[in-house]
Amino acid sequence: MRDYNSELSKKTGMPPGTLIHVGDKRVEEPKLTLVEYNGDNLEVHVSQDIDIIKDLEFAEDRKIWINVDGLHQTELIESLGKLFGVHPIVLEDILNTNQRPKTESYEDYIYVTIRTLFYERLENTVNSDQISIILGNNFILSFQEMETDLFKKIRQRMERPAGIIRKRGVDYLTYSLIDSIVDNYYLLLEDIGEEIERLEDELINEPSPATLQNIHELKREMIILRRSLWPLRETIASLQRDESGLIKESTDIYLRDLYDHSIQVIETVETYREMLSGMLDLYLSTVSNRMNEVMKVLTIIATIFIPLTFIAGIYGMNFEYMPELKWEWGYPAVMIFMATMAVIMLYYFKKKTWL
Amino acid sequence: MRDYNSELSKKTGMPPGTLIHVGDKRVEEPKLTLVEYNGDNLEVHVSQDIDIIKDLEFAEDRKIWINVDGLHQTELIESLGKLFGVHPIVLEDILNTNQRPKTESYEDYIYVTIRTLFYERLENTVNSDQISIILGNNFILSFQEMETDLFKKIRQRMERPAGIIRKRGVDYLTYSLIDSIVDNYYLLLEDIGEEIERLEDELINEPSPATLQNIHELKREMIILRRSLWPLRETIASLQRDESGLIKESTDIYLRDLYDHSIQVIETVETYREMLSGMLDLYLSTVSNRMNEVMKVLTIIATIFIPLTFIAGIYGMNFEYMPELKWEWGYPAVMIFMATMAVIMLYYFKKKTWL
Amino acid sequence: MRDYNSELSKKTGMPPGTLIHVGDKRVEEPKLTLVEYNGDNLEVHVSQDIDIIKDLEFAEDRKIWINVDGLHQTELIESLGKLFGVHPIVLEDILNTNQRPKTESYEDYIYVTIRTLFYERLENTVNSDQISIILGNNFILSFQEMETDLFKKIRQRMERPAGIIRKRGVDYLTYSLIDSIVDNYYLLLEDIGEEIERLEDELINEPSPATLQNIHELKREMIILRRSLWPLRETIASLQRDESGLIKESTDIYLRDLYDHSIQVIETVETYREMLSGMLDLYLSTVSNRMNEVMKVLTIIATIFIPLTFIAGIYGMNFEYMPELKWEWGYPAVMIFMATMAVIMLYYFKKKTWL
Amino acid sequence: MRDYNSELSKKTGMPPGTLIHVGDKRVEEPKLTLVEYNGDNLEVHVSQDIDIIKDLEFAEDRKIWINVDGLHQTELIESLGKLFGVHPIVLEDILNTNQRPKTESYEDYIYVTIRTLFYERLENTVNSDQISIILGNNFILSFQEMETDLFKKIRQRMERPAGIIRKRGVDYLTYSLIDSIVDNYYLLLEDIGEEIERLEDELINEPSPATLQNIHELKREMIILRRSLWPLRETIASLQRDESGLIKESTDIYLRDLYDHSIQVIETVETYREMLSGMLDLYLSTVSNRMNEVMKVLTIIATIFIPLTFIAGIYGMNFEYMPELKWEWGYPAVMIFMATMAVIMLYYFKKKTWL
Amino acid sequence: MRDYNSELSKKTGMPPGTLIHVGDKRVEEPKLTLVEYNGDNLEVHVSQDIDIIKDLEFAEDRKIWINVDGLHQTELIESLGKLFGVHPIVLEDILNTNQRPKTESYEDYIYVTIRTLFYERLENTVNSDQISIILGNNFILSFQEMETDLFKKIRQRMERPAGIIRKRGVDYLTYSLIDSIVDNYYLLLEDIGEEIERLEDELINEPSPATLQNIHELKREMIILRRSLWPLRETIASLQRDESGLIKESTDIYLRDLYDHSIQVIETVETYREMLSGMLDLYLSTVSNRMNEVMKVLTIIATIFIPLTFIAGIYGMNFEYMPELKWEWGYPAVMIFMATMAVIMLYYFKKKTWL
Repeated sequence: MRDYNSELSKKTGMPPGTLIHVGDKRVEEPKLTLVEYNGDNLEVHVSQDIDIIKDLEFAEDRKIWINVDGLHQTELIESLGKLFGVHPIVLEDILNTNQRPKTESYEDYIYVTIRTLFYERLENTVNSDQISIILGNNFILSFQEMETDLFKKIRQRMERPAGIIRKRGVDYLTYSLIDSIVDNYYLLLEDIGEEIERLEDELINEPSPATLQNIHELKREMIILRRSLWPLRETIASLQRDESGLIKESTDIYLRDLYDHSIQVIETVETYREMLSGMLDLYLSTVSNRMNEVMKVLTIIATIFIPLTFIAGIYGMNFEYMPELKWEWGYPAVMIFMATMAVIMLYYFKKKTWL
Repeated sequence: MRDYNSELSKKTGMPPGTLIHVGDKRVEEPKLTLVEYNGDNLEVHVSQDIDIIKDLEFAEDRKIWINVDGLHQTELIESLGKLFGVHPIVLEDILNTNQRPKTESYEDYIYVTIRTLFYERLENTVNSDQISIILGNNFILSFQEMETDLFKKIRQRMERPAGIIRKRGVDYLTYSLIDSIVDNYYLLLEDIGEEIERLEDELINEPSPATLQNIHELKREMIILRRSLWPLRETIASLQRDESGLIKESTDIYLRDLYDHSIQVIETVETYREMLSGMLDLYLSTVSNRMNEVMKVLTIIATIFIPLTFIAGIYGMNFEYMPELKWEWGYPAVMIFMATMAVIMLYYFKKKTWL
Repeated sequence: MRDYNSELSKKTGMPPGTLIHVGDKRVEEPKLTLVEYNGDNLEVHVSQDIDIIKDLEFAEDRKIWINVDGLHQTELIESLGKLFGVHPIVLEDILNTNQRPKTESYEDYIYVTIRTLFYERLENTVNSDQISIILGNNFILSFQEMETDLFKKIRQRMERPAGIIRKRGVDYLTYSLIDSIVDNYYLLLEDIGEEIERLEDELINEPSPATLQNIHELKREMIILRRSLWPLRETIASLQRDESGLIKESTDIYLRDLYDHSIQVIETVETYREMLSGMLDLYLSTVSNRMNEVMKVLTIIATIFIPLTFIAGIYGMNFEYMPELKWEWGYPAVMIFMATMAVIMLYYFKKKTWL
Repeated sequence: MRDYNSELSKKTGMPPGTLIHVGDKRVEEPKLTLVEYNGDNLEVHVSQDIDIIKDLEFAEDRKIWINVDGLHQTELIESLGKLFGVHPIVLEDILNTNQRPKTESYEDYIYVTIRTLFYERLENTVNSDQISIILGNNFILSFQEMETDLFKKIRQRMERPAGIIRKRGVDYLTYSLIDSIVDNYYLLLEDIGEEIERLEDELINEPSPATLQNIHELKREMIILRRSLWPLRETIASLQRDESGLIKESTDIYLRDLYDHSIQVIETVETYREMLSGMLDLYLSTVSNRMNEVMKVLTIIATIFIPLTFIAGIYGMNFEYMPELKWEWGYPAVMIFMATMAVIMLYYFKKKTWL
Repeated sequence: MRDYNSELSKKTGMPPGTLIHVGDKRVEEPKLTLVEYNGDNLEVHVSQDIDIIKDLEFAEDRKIWINVDGLHQTELIESLGKLFGVHPIVLEDILNTNQRPKTESYEDYIYVTIRTLFYERLENTVNSDQISIILGNNFILSFQEMETDLFKKIRQRMERPAGIIRKRGVDYLTYSLIDSIVDNYYLLLEDIGEEIERLEDELINEPSPATLQNIHELKREMIILRRSLWPLRETIASLQRDESGLIKESTDIYLRDLYDHSIQVIETVETYREMLSGMLDLYLSTVSNRMNEVMKVLTIIATIFIPLTFIAGIYGMNFEYMPELKWEWGYPAVMIFMATMAVIMLYYFKKKTWL
């Protein structure tokens, strides 16, 4: 997530409403998927061309879902926007892939933007893509930076005629799309949770500077993740409060459930962040502890042997008149004296619980 | 509480309303307890089969409490749900045992979910079970992951005909169930409080890396516990504010009391967390302090004996022309000089309050 | 304050409304003090028996204040409660001496609970008693865990016929009681403030592990104190907002004053807590500083004498062919060389500002 | 600011409304300044006696400002209060010089209390005086603990007949008084800001324990200052919201400006506090850094010379059968060996970037 | 940003409404740029004199934008203010270049003040200029401390007749001006983000006291930046809520977009601040880690060689009766004994994972 803001400046100085793709080009060619469905039928068309949409006939009993994978062909987005009457500033937001999650109500449609998140364990980073959804009267437009499995699964569920998703309106489909994204966060959090456990074990059993590095990186990702997820709560609450009539009452109960999930996700990130902070503090204490142990070993050795070496040094002096050197028992006497000193020292350290 | 999120991903990609038990299977067979009661009578039926409920006749003057222990037989839950008209998304929440505590009002019933907590001192962890309660017009459904003592005690109190619990409606019974759960938190907090006191004593008297480890683990549990308990306040406040008429005015005063308890519980967890943070800081200061003591001992020994050893080393040199070596009083003079140096050093350390 | 929660579990599993004294028995026998007063008269009766109250005649022009010292005789409390129509759940709160400060409005009376605080400097702990006050139409009931000076002083003020307290209603008396408790907090805070100053001086002049211990203990007490005092603000605000008519408009101005005091008390505790946190940080820096000083002394000594000792060691070797040993000026040359080295070292340390 | 709470307890146990001066006696004799003014005239009377006020005639077209310097003559305050119909509890607040800043609306007047602040750089402390202002229909009473320049300057501005202050009502004068106090905070903050810069430079260039001490003291003052200034915002907002009509609409725009200033002052204190916290953290890291440097020097010296000294020690042993001692080239061989070892060690330290 | 408050005191003691330029003189001569425009025409006049404005004719179908670069000629600002009916206190705010961002609604115009920010990487500081905008019925006045590129670009965009900016009212121009300032923040944040990345790399690969210094400085700038940007959100929200009719409904959608940007900017600053805090903590742990490594090297060397040196010292003693010295195999025996001791020590360190 290092480059989170790195392209924001690309647009500086441009008049608002200028359509420029801010973000990486993730796919070669944008792909358009048109799904027309109602309780009885389901038709799927895939194309790289906008022409298949131009001949589209709107009908009361047909719901339309158009999904775009790949955002760098701005003309495609612009044409789509004109066709469905989307305000240029919304199109600008769709193309600028650094949006905070948000819900905006317009006269004829609701614009929701949200992020999918991917945790890359090897690099300890969380990457994210922007998903934009426009919910109209009888249609949904969805925009992804690249094709993901998330929406494909929804499409597979739609193929079953008995599915609730076919019977209900496009508001329920919108809910399903957002729900699949939020559900995916749990996978992410589970992965991160496992990494935290692994790091905690490592911290206790064999801490190394790399452990410190990993904890720090993961905590930094949590700070950035929190920034990305914090607005999620308000995004879904805004959908719930929507008064345009585009969201039917029967969908409310599902949005409430989604709201609970979003809070749970945010709280988990917050908890992880606090746990990682605690682990960083623990690391510092542990290092201090081990330094203390090292110091004790050094001190014990030095405190025992430095005085003894001094005594040996005295009897190594070459003075002519040193009566002790002539004594027959001088050598054993000094040896016994030194041994006694060492024992007293060891007893002293024992009492100080350094041993 | 390590695996708090570990099964959340099981449901990813499923359509909403899919009934899957998310959590561990805690009992072999689910157990159904049916309690029919009013001021005069009390009948208890226990079964593993839903049939005993199918013949149930609803009567104005009879209140019904159905308790389910064990959630892994989803068909049982589904049948119960259909019988009492519970929305599938509520049943999904009952089976997904990772809910945050919450109160949700529906047209005909109120859904409350809350967690029971158990502190396992040996492992310094707090485990939790999810309890779900559905309060209807004249009935209560309660769902536990496994049988606990909490609800059994309520049932025993109900057997006394004079008890207030028999005379009042199912809203009072709901209160009693939640109250018994919240009361149980006090036991948990008391256990944790004792552990904190024990750790504080240990920290002051004989701190070891294990003490640090324990404080850290307990603090981590407090972070997770806070996340579990924080929504409790809102859960009970929502019950108080309920306008469906299912909660009678006479129960309000009890819910207010419960609300006070919930705040007290949350504040205690917060206080514990802050106290444990303080203890971690204290540990670091204590380790630094002790390292300082170790350093002082080393420095005193080294500072006294290293110069003395040097002097002894000088007179151990084998130069032919060293006049001092020939002096008769050379040896005692050097000894006195060295003793004087040592005394000066000790005086210097005394003045620096290192001794 | 260590045992703050230690008896909370005593009530677990009891039906609500069960009257059990949760707390220590602080007095041998409970004492009942009945004060009947109006502008003209004041009668005081003291008894250990409830009988003196049973014959009590209520009269429009007489105000009644009943104070109970000692809470362990639950029957006494129960009889009193029945006589004045107090709800059992309120009586339960009176007996459970671990309440948070709060104001609860009932139909005929207002229930206020608040804590008196005592700082025991020797043990660095803050102890607290629970005071409960029931303000009715023309009467006050007050409950203390043991007799204190606080209420006695109020009674003495009431004996002066000219006193405002005699002329005004029981709402003013309620204010006076709470005011005397809050005023007492200032004494507590002043004591703690002096202790903080003393510790700060100690920290700067002669820090010891005991200083650290004391700061930590005081900070812990501040955390617990904050928990006790935080609800005080809301308690008094609730009294101010009361709409039952039991609090007359003329008392409002006094409650506003009390409210200001309560905020001042809370802010002072918060300030103390932050100051103590700052002192803990300072302690750690100070210890590191002093360790740095110790290390410098060790390093200077070792860096000067270890190389010199090595040189002395070289000329102490017993090789047969060491020409220097034979030189006439060998010894003084080596001595001058060593002195030069020492001077260079000292200059280096000087430049590094270690000296 | 050490004695901030030290006299609060003086009033404990007194009935409310008792007029006692809580604070230091800062002037010998209280001084009364009476200013009568309107657009055309300005009369100033100074006296130590209240008599000059007693003959005061109120007139629609004359505005009156009475300023009192020195609060220890309670009778003077009391007489003034009675004359202008001020509630005893307000007089009590005026005399109790430990108030938080606040605005209180009464029927006929508004009571504002606010603090002037003085930074004493030598002691690193912030002292404060309490200013009380009573704004009535056509009069202002102001009370200071001692005479300051602030109000004198306002009086000088009033002497210019063209000044807006003469034309407008007493509400504008009130604004002017408060504005002059808040403006003075900027001076204080500028002084503290300069001290912070000085300390930061000292921290980077030549940190000493005294630097640590100063940063700590300044941070403590910021904690206390924040407590004093935090209520300022609400104080001025209350004035803005006032609905008594004493504050005219034309003054609103000035109060809004004052409100902005008060927020700016509070934010600056908060910023200073955070900057000082950052500096304390930096100090700890810097000390650790320098200890690390010291340790490296010690380790390099010890690691090079201890093994060499050992080798010299070996050839200083007096065994009769040590063949090396007899070799002609033994001595130079050992010297070369030792030099090689030293070079290898130095290379190793170079590689570890310790040199 | 060091001198942020340094001139605030210049105005102390002045009556409100006194026009004094508080800030540095950034340009030699103030420059006036008058832009008259509508959908069809655009006229630009540049002058240092106010006369060109005096002959200005207001017409319904012409919009006027007057930009002033350089604020130290107070008479110019005053004349402009009088001409357009701006309240003196607003002019005072325009000249006092230390304002917090804010929006103030007056009867006939809206006053917005906001800051441009420039990051100077070499000094690790963020400098800022104050921009004031007055939006009237058909005119805009804008005031800058010095000429910047930001507004010049807007003027260039206005020269294109097809541009939306020409067709819409002055409210849209106001939005465009603020938008160009906020867009510029992204450039600033990107620069700071890159510096943070660079510092993080440096921290991991080759931390030095200068790294610490840089992180600290950048964090301090973030604290100050947060103070400057925090009110931005409210500033734009106030514009959105404006009810004067000066802001047309069609501009609302653009302001909403601007509001999102402002939140994103604030959150990024907050995230940076937290990341820098994390890096400071990491630095401390890293230093401790490295000190630990240094200590281990010292301890290993000392623990191996000090006892060996002691043994060598023993056989260097000059006692006459030391039988070992006479043994033929004494020397090799001692050497083998010492080697064995060294090996045992090394094995012990290996087991302790110090090697």
